[in-house]
Amino acid sequence: MSAAARLASRGRPVSRPNPAVGCILVKDEVVVGRGWTLEGGRPHAEAVALEQAGDTACGATAYVTLEPCAHRSDRGPACSDLLVEAGVARVVIGLEDPDPRTAGSGAERLKSTGIAVDVLASQDAEDSLEGYLTRARCGRPHITLKLALSLDGRIAMEDGSSQWITGEEARAHVHSRRAMSDAIVVGGATWRHDKPRLDVRLEGLEQRSPDRVLLTRGVPPDGVKVINDPAQVASFEGVQYLYVEGGAGAAASFLAADLVDRLEIYRAPILIGKGKPALGDIGLTSLGDAHGRWALAENRQLGSDFFTAYRRTRQ
Amino acid sequence: MSAAARLASRGRPVSRPNPAVGCILVKDEVVVGRGWTLEGGRPHAEAVALEQAGDTACGATAYVTLEPCAHRSDRGPACSDLLVEAGVARVVIGLEDPDPRTAGSGAERLKSTGIAVDVLASQDAEDSLEGYLTRARCGRPHITLKLALSLDGRIAMEDGSSQWITGEEARAHVHSRRAMSDAIVVGGATWRHDKPRLDVRLEGLEQRSPDRVLLTRGVPPDGVKVINDPAQVASFEGVQYLYVEGGAGAAASFLAADLVDRLEIYRAPILIGKGKPALGDIGLTSLGDAHGRWALAENRQLGSDFFTAYRRTRQ
Repeated sequence: MSAAARLASRGRPVSRPNPAVGCILVKDEVVVGRGWTLEGGRPHAEAVALEQAGDTACGATAYVTLEPCAHRSDRGPACSDLLVEAGVARVVIGLEDPDPRTAGSGAERLKSTGIAVDVLASQDAEDSLEGYLTRARCGRPHITLKLALSLDGRIAMEDGSSQWITGEEARAHVHSRRAMSDAIVVGGATWRHDKPRLDVRLEGLEQRSPDRVLLTRGVPPDGVKVINDPAQVASFEGVQYLYVEGGAGAAASFLAADLVDRLEIYRAPILIGKGKPALGDIGLTSLGDAHGRWALAENRQLGSDFFTAYRRTRQ
Repeated sequence: MSAAARLASRGRPVSRPNPAVGCILVKDEVVVGRGWTLEGGRPHAEAVALEQAGDTACGATAYVTLEPCAHRSDRGPACSDLLVEAGVARVVIGLEDPDPRTAGSGAERLKSTGIAVDVLASQDAEDSLEGYLTRARCGRPHITLKLALSLDGRIAMEDGSSQWITGEEARAHVHSRRAMSDAIVVGGATWRHDKPRLDVRLEGLEQRSPDRVLLTRGVPPDGVKVINDPAQVASFEGVQYLYVEGGAGAAASFLAADLVDRLEIYRAPILIGKGKPALGDIGLTSLGDAHGRWALAENRQLGSDFFTAYRRTRQ
């Protein structure tokens, strides 16, 4: 399932408005088909993997990160039907689909024809689908807040200069994270001061530059989508992954509204002292309330910087 | 040599005014003696290890972190003489002693009697002797700055509350670091606001509470040593290891004077937002100057917090 979840990430974020699903077909301990949701959401991962396997799919086990869909649409057949037709013997499902059009009926359809079905509650599958799941559960995109800091938590010197705090590897990593997002948000002050391009400058991924959104109460510049409250991100049609790049004001607004699901911190081995803080007021009234909200998700070195990601813990 | 360096750390900081040295005697691949510098500096590590080995020291190899001393004193015989008398066959030295009374003459004394001598430039030996070496090279103690921070680099909420940012494991680690220091420095504001005890509250180490020093330009409270400039630490007789506990003003003063050799950061997985910054003005005028000064020395998890240590890189 971990391998299927890694495969699924290849569909992020271009599978929108569909979830990025991964599917692996295994027969006699050999992988006979691999697929992930393609651009625009079609074909689905299962269809790609079955096409690849051809006749050998018969009797195989399908590992799929999300429950195969049960609803037929103009855009293609239901994946549960395709799996039945191909004659697979067993389907291992990472997560039940919260979409009410499927929600258990995909698994039922498979079972009714005698296929063995196991529904796991796989953390890897869940992680690979967090954009889709956050939309389904909270009615808004999954939101990542990025911070690039000195050891003492500064994002710039007092005069605003911030080029560069982090090194090349960390900056390339940021571009890869942009390429995994549907839209990027920055605050008005950052927009005016840094005039950020917010595009993806990685070879082969230039086309992946996400939509740019400005959080401001001021006069919007031409050609840029504007919101004046973080809650308005709920209205972004089809956006599964939102990446908030700063500055301190925009970051604090999203945190104060408890709209950050993942925190990604790049930390350079430098001290700045007097300078711009990472965050404005996030509405914290007691230190005790600050604890128990962030769980370590990832931690690694990028050149001389450290990258650490935290997941917002919610029940 | 790594094992001898670890052994040496048992003498820190009680060996003062002498360096904390470690010595291991090996004969026929068996350890026959182990010693480290005892309280007050005597006996020396070599004397302890030789005493333990007795007659088996004859023909053994001695691994010693610092060049054995060559000067006789009222407090005991020279270690190079003891090694000669014991009849060791070979001495492996981690580092030449910068003390002009030895500085090569210890090794010469050994060689002149036919003992094989290897002088390494061992990083482990150097690390275990950094207090002694900083005194010898810079005429002041080795200085560690401790910071306990939120992810966004705050040391307290805006009202000053800071209990607790880090968890129990991190706080116990701080106490163990105090026990490894000769003296602790805090700033006047921290002294007045937090009324810190600055003692060691670890079972069996209560007697290890270091001297307390206050950095302030204000009126000194009774019974506390006071300095009004970081440079005055050079005058602390016999102090090899100084631990600066904060707050932001004292920390910044030491950094601005480039008097910090090691940075020890405890980072809790919390966000504070508006609050007290870790550091005041450290005199940085350009971002480029901030780079290349701190090299990662240690990184590990302590409960839910992260401990990261950096070494100041100087040529």
